[in-house]
Amino acid sequence: MSGLNDVLARLDERAEASLSELIEFASIPSVSAQPDHQPDMERAATWLAERLQRAGLKIVERWPTAGHTAVYAEDLDAGEDAPTLLVYGHYDVQPPDPLEKWHTPPFTPTVKGERLYGRGVSDDKGPLLLTVQVVDAYLSTLGKLPLNLKFLFEGEEEVGSAHLNELVAQNAGRLKADFVLSADGGMWSASVPSLTVSARGLAALELTVRGPAKDLHSGRHGGSVHNPLHALAALIAGLHDESGRVTVPGFYDGIAELTPQQRGGIQQLPFGDEAYLTQTGAPAVYGESGYSTLERQWHRPTLEVNGMWGGYTGEGTKTVLPSEAHAKMTCRLVPGQEPERIAALLRQHLEDNLPPGVTLEIHAGDHGARAYRLPEDHPGAVVAREVLAELYGKPPLDVGMGGSIPVLETFQSVLGLDTVFFSFAVGDEDIHAPNEFFRVPRLAEGQRAWAQFWWTLGEKTDE
Amino acid sequence: MSGLNDVLARLDERAEASLSELIEFASIPSVSAQPDHQPDMERAATWLAERLQRAGLKIVERWPTAGHTAVYAEDLDAGEDAPTLLVYGHYDVQPPDPLEKWHTPPFTPTVKGERLYGRGVSDDKGPLLLTVQVVDAYLSTLGKLPLNLKFLFEGEEEVGSAHLNELVAQNAGRLKADFVLSADGGMWSASVPSLTVSARGLAALELTVRGPAKDLHSGRHGGSVHNPLHALAALIAGLHDESGRVTVPGFYDGIAELTPQQRGGIQQLPFGDEAYLTQTGAPAVYGESGYSTLERQWHRPTLEVNGMWGGYTGEGTKTVLPSEAHAKMTCRLVPGQEPERIAALLRQHLEDNLPPGVTLEIHAGDHGARAYRLPEDHPGAVVAREVLAELYGKPPLDVGMGGSIPVLETFQSVLGLDTVFFSFAVGDEDIHAPNEFFRVPRLAEGQRAWAQFWWTLGEKTDE
Repeated sequence: MSGLNDVLARLDERAEASLSELIEFASIPSVSAQPDHQPDMERAATWLAERLQRAGLKIVERWPTAGHTAVYAEDLDAGEDAPTLLVYGHYDVQPPDPLEKWHTPPFTPTVKGERLYGRGVSDDKGPLLLTVQVVDAYLSTLGKLPLNLKFLFEGEEEVGSAHLNELVAQNAGRLKADFVLSADGGMWSASVPSLTVSARGLAALELTVRGPAKDLHSGRHGGSVHNPLHALAALIAGLHDESGRVTVPGFYDGIAELTPQQRGGIQQLPFGDEAYLTQTGAPAVYGESGYSTLERQWHRPTLEVNGMWGGYTGEGTKTVLPSEAHAKMTCRLVPGQEPERIAALLRQHLEDNLPPGVTLEIHAGDHGARAYRLPEDHPGAVVAREVLAELYGKPPLDVGMGGSIPVLETFQSVLGLDTVFFSFAVGDEDIHAPNEFFRVPRLAEGQRAWAQFWWTLGEKTDE
Repeated sequence: MSGLNDVLARLDERAEASLSELIEFASIPSVSAQPDHQPDMERAATWLAERLQRAGLKIVERWPTAGHTAVYAEDLDAGEDAPTLLVYGHYDVQPPDPLEKWHTPPFTPTVKGERLYGRGVSDDKGPLLLTVQVVDAYLSTLGKLPLNLKFLFEGEEEVGSAHLNELVAQNAGRLKADFVLSADGGMWSASVPSLTVSARGLAALELTVRGPAKDLHSGRHGGSVHNPLHALAALIAGLHDESGRVTVPGFYDGIAELTPQQRGGIQQLPFGDEAYLTQTGAPAVYGESGYSTLERQWHRPTLEVNGMWGGYTGEGTKTVLPSEAHAKMTCRLVPGQEPERIAALLRQHLEDNLPPGVTLEIHAGDHGARAYRLPEDHPGAVVAREVLAELYGKPPLDVGMGGSIPVLETFQSVLGLDTVFFSFAVGDEDIHAPNEFFRVPRLAEGQRAWAQFWWTLGEKTDE
């Protein structure tokens, strides 16, 4: 363990520098969804590639895609008998809208107490960067890694990892590994160590309801033709029943009921609806009846409208009966639900329930991912539990993840690899929302955990 | 009649100049709803005041309000025994959004064939300006008017005539007249002369549905708390039943059923749903069952959502469960419905039907107007019928108006005056929508009709 202690000591020495690097990285507005930010995406990829090189990795490559560039690096000096991990993360971030709700500028990362505020600091630049800083500590102290490492950092996670499948398939040989260790994901709570063992899948649709060919005066024409806003509202209102269940026929087909173990595990968690409401500021919890809040978040599928718009939305009044109304929606899926089938069922349901007097156009969203479950006895899960138990002085809890990481599906289906989540982001850090933050102490905790994870996995194989 | 003929000849000579003036007037973007256009509102008021002066009116005044300035002018030289008319119109226009749907720039009025395209040309700058041009023709040929005229042109019609009530009350003495002749309104069809004898009233509300205190990630949190977009959709969908009737309790109270005369009159009109659908581009007519399209437009109250928005509405996907959702809505009212009472009923209904897990905030809209009916034997209606019958060679049809003119209520309640609509705009001219247009020949037809109306009314009193 003396080797590992040197690495940890080096990480301690560099604690301040590590935070400065994260601030620098997160000040690049790498918003993958917005074409205007294309130069920033390139800047972020360059910054990351240079940091990997400075860490001592001799092979660092930029892998272009039809979309945004991925950054790849490797160090296979541990040799063929040592285990090989594929480390995954993403350097792109969500759009910062609504801008006016930020208390500090989203791309001027700002430390306040133990929190660093800025777009992408938690999702996923902090958790990603710390893995590179651990490599740096290993190579600058010991001159070598305790196992073989491959890094794949993509730039399209926030837009559904559109080209990653293709990229991974093309480079399947080089990406071979024992499993994927993901810097993306996030722990369930800052105070209780946890291991994420499931993630929900995703299916997305966008729809346009059309009425008159042009906007009409709502006084002259109101009552004559159907208002697309009314028709859209009726369509959306019809997607859930009064018990909060999705009404789309077949939506719940093939889903297993929660096991007594799953329900029991959740009941043991230190989770309370009241604290959750304080955290989110919502007036009440709400959702499918018969399930607790965490059961709904982790093990039940949902359908959420993410955006809805039409007509006059500016200042003052405009008495218009608009020509069009729009909505974007996504479903979160659980095992047993195929994204394509769910999207098709939803599409059929919307078409079957279209109110009279309007037409409907449906576009498939660019996302799509199956739900994921990590096997209980997976070697990566075993090591992760050990490391977290030592770091936090108590065994981690198995938790689910409401969100989706489409790459899970890619790694599973293209490379046949399981993914172990080992992110040090926390679920309450307002990712995808204004005032996203990352807990500064988690940078050091994450570094220590990753250093130990690699060390332990390397040792286990030596035995 | 030789005097009138001179006036009409002068108008013929000035036909080209009349159109040029309208183009100049309509190129001023006098959008009352948008504070950015405040200087343009002032420019338009100045342009109009100068045009009234050039027409030979010796008394032309700018009447400031807490909002936009009104322009007043008068010529009372016909003396106390002659009738006195108050001519009403408005120089403000609707916002031009959505800009991308215009084929020509909204504030570069463009002639194509017999149509002049531009924001405000039909509502209300063309119909307003022609009345000034008729004064010009009278004074430049005969040196006097056949009756006393007062002109009140306001700059807030498109924002609900917010300060007109106060202005009219303050100047009630100077505004005394036999009745109001309105250049605002519009005829029902270009080919069939018509006299508008009713207008619907208006009540407006704006609402905000609030859920979590901040936007949440729809993956992590979806299924845990209520989505304000779902709650808003449910609220809006619940405002109408399947037969197209408004569900707000008490909404239809006090409304008289259509009389056999009203239904019979409408059946005689050359109106067909098919032509209406061609004109509007809607796939089908739709509305309260048991009534024809025109019956619904003219004699039945409606509730229309004019705008609805929330969540992510930009490019690509943002998996957000938004904090807020918004809607703007207006009701069109018929005799028997008080605007304040309808707004209160609607507010109560929305509060009573609020889905769980969200809160609701309701703001009163700035509009509000009672419905209007012109007495059958009103002297202004009698002269209008005579003039239109001569101009078009057939008697005009009595028609209703789906839209609202809040000033009707002002003139009725503050001054005790009836209003006769005598606008030469046509209902299909895409007012409040992209590509608004005015039929160029209607400029001359309107001038001739107004010249004749004044002459006839003056003569009738001479007899």
